[in-house]
Amino acid sequence: MTSFSVGLLGHGTVGGAFHELLDARAGAIESTTGIRPEISGVLTRSRGDFDDILERSDLVCELIGGIEPARTYILRALTAGKHVVTANKQVLSQHGEEIYEAARAGGAQLRFEAAVGGVVPVIRVIHETLAAAHIDRVHGIVNGTTNFILSQMTATGESYAEALAEAQRLGYAEADPSDDVNGKDAAAKMAILARLAFNARVGLDDVQYEGIEAITVDDIDYAKELGLSLKLVGTAERRGGGLSVRVHPAFLYGSHPLAAVNGSFNGVTFESPAITEITLSGPGAGGSQTASAVLGDVISSMIPPPTLPAPPQDVPVVTDVESGFYLHLQVADRPGVLAQIAEILGMQGCSVKSVVQKGLGDDARLEMVVHPVLESKFLGAVEMIAGLDFVRERPRVIRVIDEAFEAPAATG
Amino acid sequence: MTSFSVGLLGHGTVGGAFHELLDARAGAIESTTGIRPEISGVLTRSRGDFDDILERSDLVCELIGGIEPARTYILRALTAGKHVVTANKQVLSQHGEEIYEAARAGGAQLRFEAAVGGVVPVIRVIHETLAAAHIDRVHGIVNGTTNFILSQMTATGESYAEALAEAQRLGYAEADPSDDVNGKDAAAKMAILARLAFNARVGLDDVQYEGIEAITVDDIDYAKELGLSLKLVGTAERRGGGLSVRVHPAFLYGSHPLAAVNGSFNGVTFESPAITEITLSGPGAGGSQTASAVLGDVISSMIPPPTLPAPPQDVPVVTDVESGFYLHLQVADRPGVLAQIAEILGMQGCSVKSVVQKGLGDDARLEMVVHPVLESKFLGAVEMIAGLDFVRERPRVIRVIDEAFEAPAATG
Repeated sequence: MTSFSVGLLGHGTVGGAFHELLDARAGAIESTTGIRPEISGVLTRSRGDFDDILERSDLVCELIGGIEPARTYILRALTAGKHVVTANKQVLSQHGEEIYEAARAGGAQLRFEAAVGGVVPVIRVIHETLAAAHIDRVHGIVNGTTNFILSQMTATGESYAEALAEAQRLGYAEADPSDDVNGKDAAAKMAILARLAFNARVGLDDVQYEGIEAITVDDIDYAKELGLSLKLVGTAERRGGGLSVRVHPAFLYGSHPLAAVNGSFNGVTFESPAITEITLSGPGAGGSQTASAVLGDVISSMIPPPTLPAPPQDVPVVTDVESGFYLHLQVADRPGVLAQIAEILGMQGCSVKSVVQKGLGDDARLEMVVHPVLESKFLGAVEMIAGLDFVRERPRVIRVIDEAFEAPAATG
Repeated sequence: MTSFSVGLLGHGTVGGAFHELLDARAGAIESTTGIRPEISGVLTRSRGDFDDILERSDLVCELIGGIEPARTYILRALTAGKHVVTANKQVLSQHGEEIYEAARAGGAQLRFEAAVGGVVPVIRVIHETLAAAHIDRVHGIVNGTTNFILSQMTATGESYAEALAEAQRLGYAEADPSDDVNGKDAAAKMAILARLAFNARVGLDDVQYEGIEAITVDDIDYAKELGLSLKLVGTAERRGGGLSVRVHPAFLYGSHPLAAVNGSFNGVTFESPAITEITLSGPGAGGSQTASAVLGDVISSMIPPPTLPAPPQDVPVVTDVESGFYLHLQVADRPGVLAQIAEILGMQGCSVKSVVQKGLGDDARLEMVVHPVLESKFLGAVEMIAGLDFVRERPRVIRVIDEAFEAPAATG
């Protein structure tokens, strides 16, 4: 058995979730890659010794956050030729060049997918997918706390203070939310994205930023009339021979791909002449999402990502599956029609979610949506309904995809 | 100089665009990676010799499409230990296992990002980002032609036949659109995604599919009342101990992340318990987009993707940039007010895009959006306006991000 030793610095929300996830997935990772990742030591304020952990690790995961001692640990690990995975946007946006240079000098890998966009793979997309493209502009919703607050104000009409309190109650905002709501967290992330996208020396100090504390529900409501929705948007773009990086509350038109990014989700749009634009979105950050991004980086450090699928397992293909359905019927407009249809649906185990009925002279049009049910059951019901004497046309059936998951609690 | 020889099979829309893009970007790629990619030969029906090209290439780009002779060329290249990059969904969905096995046996890389989702990096995300996750379900809008037709029917009320004709006129659909509109193209792509996501033996034959030919504008309109929008949706999901892969026209609720993917764009959503969901979207396929995805694969085959940014260039940071703005004013409701405000804006070079004015007793509320203008100019105008005697409150200013790019012409 080949093993790969991971030294874990920090054991808070993200560190703890990463430790758990690694233990849970180690077997599956070993069976895919042939290498088993193992925690070689944990450093917290009260336990562990950095030198000892460094000595015994192939890779160090820095999940302490903040500038010091994170910066010193990262630099020492890289200088010793140990790979580093970090989720630390502060240290990268303020001491990035020093850290990148240490990685080059030490011949070590440095991976930081979790520092921006949580589990949304924005760093990889810049390094790999867009390697052949010339990026002109990056727009990002990169702070889940502020996106939750603005979504909440938009949906409920709550004031900023009320929405913030709600975010704190639900765990979407920290007790001291200053660096989230004043735009600094988003500014650090945009500095990192701009550094990569434009290969230019950009740090937090180069980013102009403004938060959401002064936003009123009035602004949101008035702008709705103009077809606009309000987000805290980071922008990094080329401007003539220079570039501009900034974070501001900003209105987006409904057609903008980031306009639909709601709740605590993050989203990033890359614009490039060759490809128009790519948009990525997903949960911004939460313990388990960030841990998943960190583990992805650890695996990539262990072994180059595969270019092929592994030999396949034989898994049976199921053909009769559950789905929601839309059913369109043209029927005679007379008493008892809906009752008879509903009875057949009920008999087949189909539960009706919504119905619209419209008169059309002597006929009526029925449009129904049913909750997920086995396709064979539903299509059986439709055949029975098609045979009823008051049904005027062949019924029309279209599948309905369930509503998406709710956005999970997340901060940062 | 280190060079990397690329044999190009096929010189149609994608092959030609790739050839051009590679020539245009070769210098930039060399300066980043130290390796210069060069076309070692081109095979078309009328010119070139496969054996000769294979002999002289480090990597073969298969951009012929279809089953034969693409399958034979891919297998021969991989068996000879040459890397292969392909955009061919047909051959991968019908002969994938044979091809993956040949790559393993030959010790060669096989990359096929362009086969699914165009430039949207769905294959990389499965291989890398989701390496640590357990994927439960994939939903995909993976055919740009049908998404364009359905978007067009929804937006204009045109019939299927009219929207198809429009798509053909604009280059979004081919002269023979059969495999796009009957769902087969999407089914091939979903088979490839399912194979990777679930590591299960899934081919085109395992996918149930249905096209959009029978969709009527009525269905789309009725469903709008129910808050649904119609897409051709591919679904690959675990079901009990098995899995199901299918493509159907399906209604999505407005809150679903794919509901906002319009025109010829593609989008894919990955669901996994640890991460909730990730959504990727962008141009489905067009010559230059596909070429960009192919070139990204070629670069990744040349050299492992970087984990660090290159040493930075010094690019000036510009602080006064153009932006659209929203301006909210509370003013006395009397003649000449709007004229005076408009004059100041005009003097500063700000052009008004929209205005909403509302009476509030003796006062009026003005909400304006101005076209992009230098921030310093606009804020100068706001200061002048703030000083006018009929302005009741401190003006409020929020940036407005321009509407996103139009979706480009694309097929497939």
